[in-house]
Amino acid sequence: MRIIVLGVDGYLGWPTCMYFSQRGHEVLGIDNYFRRNAAQELDCEALIPTPNLAQRARVWKEITGREIKISIGDIIKYEFLLSAFRTFEPDAVVHYAEQPSAPYSMMSRDKAAFTVSNNLIGTLNIANAIHEVNPECHIIKLGTMGEYGTPNIDIEEGWLEIEHNGRKDKFLFPRQASSIYHTSKIQDTDLLWFYVRTWDLRVTDLMQGPVYGISTGETDLDGRLLPNFHYDEIFGTVLNRFIVQAVAGYPLTVYGKGGQTRGYLNLKDTMQCVYLSAIQPARAGELRIFNQVTETFSVNELAEKVKDAGNALGYEVKINSIENPRKEKEEHYYNPKYTGLLELGLKPHYLTDEVMKGIFSLVERYRGRINREAIFRGIKWK
Amino acid sequence: MRIIVLGVDGYLGWPTCMYFSQRGHEVLGIDNYFRRNAAQELDCEALIPTPNLAQRARVWKEITGREIKISIGDIIKYEFLLSAFRTFEPDAVVHYAEQPSAPYSMMSRDKAAFTVSNNLIGTLNIANAIHEVNPECHIIKLGTMGEYGTPNIDIEEGWLEIEHNGRKDKFLFPRQASSIYHTSKIQDTDLLWFYVRTWDLRVTDLMQGPVYGISTGETDLDGRLLPNFHYDEIFGTVLNRFIVQAVAGYPLTVYGKGGQTRGYLNLKDTMQCVYLSAIQPARAGELRIFNQVTETFSVNELAEKVKDAGNALGYEVKINSIENPRKEKEEHYYNPKYTGLLELGLKPHYLTDEVMKGIFSLVERYRGRINREAIFRGIKWK
Repeated sequence: MRIIVLGVDGYLGWPTCMYFSQRGHEVLGIDNYFRRNAAQELDCEALIPTPNLAQRARVWKEITGREIKISIGDIIKYEFLLSAFRTFEPDAVVHYAEQPSAPYSMMSRDKAAFTVSNNLIGTLNIANAIHEVNPECHIIKLGTMGEYGTPNIDIEEGWLEIEHNGRKDKFLFPRQASSIYHTSKIQDTDLLWFYVRTWDLRVTDLMQGPVYGISTGETDLDGRLLPNFHYDEIFGTVLNRFIVQAVAGYPLTVYGKGGQTRGYLNLKDTMQCVYLSAIQPARAGELRIFNQVTETFSVNELAEKVKDAGNALGYEVKINSIENPRKEKEEHYYNPKYTGLLELGLKPHYLTDEVMKGIFSLVERYRGRINREAIFRGIKWK
Repeated sequence: MRIIVLGVDGYLGWPTCMYFSQRGHEVLGIDNYFRRNAAQELDCEALIPTPNLAQRARVWKEITGREIKISIGDIIKYEFLLSAFRTFEPDAVVHYAEQPSAPYSMMSRDKAAFTVSNNLIGTLNIANAIHEVNPECHIIKLGTMGEYGTPNIDIEEGWLEIEHNGRKDKFLFPRQASSIYHTSKIQDTDLLWFYVRTWDLRVTDLMQGPVYGISTGETDLDGRLLPNFHYDEIFGTVLNRFIVQAVAGYPLTVYGKGGQTRGYLNLKDTMQCVYLSAIQPARAGELRIFNQVTETFSVNELAEKVKDAGNALGYEVKINSIENPRKEKEEHYYNPKYTGLLELGLKPHYLTDEVMKGIFSLVERYRGRINREAIFRGIKWK
């Protein structure tokens, strides 16, 4: 298969490229280094130094003999994207190329506007390029469980049959998000659903929960192949951040009551989910939605898990509840369904003590690079 | 009351300014002349020559002694918009400043991208300016009935209570639209709903159906006060276009089976709806949604009405069914609720023979300016 991965410099992008490449597929990775540059500007760089993409592709070739093509550019520029589609002729495109941070999107008007226009025009460009070049090409789009928010009803996988006044219809599951970033992802889904109906595109929208971990079969081959690992308030995900806090002796920051419950998954499982979706594509005219999580935890439960794992490793881990800078429910019903990817063949890697120890041990190796200032800044939603 | 009207050069914008001004309110109108320029570029200019805004404001002052302030600029430029809010200190803002044409949004990738970024960043800027300057300021936003599409269930006014697996919650009514323009309006509503919840803004979102007519108490005062009147495929609304076709001896173009049913209203009623919403504002933290229509017709019914009215005036009107360039259901269930604005005090002006005669008579006056090329171009959705 020929795959374009957009956003290849990211936490998920680079491991995804290697995952496909290792399994014999032809891969072109595209990135504009947005996150790398933003993290530098905002003084919240990743824990582990990551070589640039050309360098990583060389390391990958050296170790595996396989080639990952790299192209640096901005998919907002339609001609650039179109030319990549024309030249590479992909069978599928994995779309991670979005401004991915909720706090970033809430920092200012400019960053909010950037998030909306970057994310939506990127998605719009992909749909248009595929319509123009090869409508059979399968779009695998990273959505987020955050699109659903925390409704008081069970969260189905993307769709909901509604009966009202004795009549029935099926709709996208109702969505309302708690940041501009998450709202931009709702809008992405609206856009893709429009193009699927209008142009019969094939789209898989993966509503992913927060990812943790850093180890995949490929990243483990060489330290220079690790993806960026963020632990800061802006680009980090919560479990990774908590483990860094534990190692740094920085009390785990729980926002408000800590009852916020979300679905989580291991980086290894993101690889599986995207791969399984690619080799079993959506039909023409189908917007296929999966809830990409493997288990749910409240923030309090996550904090307790990290505390226990940290204590067992000799760290004295404290938990500190602070005023919630976000506007969100701190206690709520949460029951997402997530059977679709299991049916495609996903074999989950759950959050065990062993998995946490693995992350602790990697973080320990880079503890000298932890920037305590980046962990919490209290970016307000309000 | 102090009101900013955004998009004041448009079909609705200018009459709205006069409507508020006539009733003693202070009005600032803002426009960037997008539609006027686009209509020139696309050779589909309005039927009636409309003086520029400064000229029309002078005519208005001459006739009524009242002042409408005009500012030419683009609300996408945040500093421009912010400065207008800071200087004028509005109590309410009426937001019409969007790319308003579905066919325009489907003409090319560039026009689709422009529609999405123009409409969303405009709305985002308004929310941010209000949050920054005066969170009490009421946003009256023009939505569209097209956001709902044609669901197989009754269309409620904006919200739907859903029971699922024995649990309940209330959500925005499910929405799926049939063009990029309409999709951008769904996305606008998502954005406003986010800001209402996060910043407690006051928002009224008016889901309007296609408007017809040109006469209001104010536009009738002087020919130079008429708003732009489009009859072309790109910027025209269907009833206005049909009447122009009847006058021009151009068969009425019905797309496909003609069973497409929509809710319509008279321009006079748009004035009432916006005014009634302004003087009875939404509460802080409320996204109030009204379905702004007064009656529903299928395209076939509209065509028959125009044919009958035209015949009575001595025109030989033909109806021509052509292949549908759009992707939409040509026969469907359609049952929107629209009681909210009636409860606020709306007194509807229905589509009578008298009303149609009025439009015919105005069109006849300008028949020499009808551009037959603009009526149908077959811009494809596909």
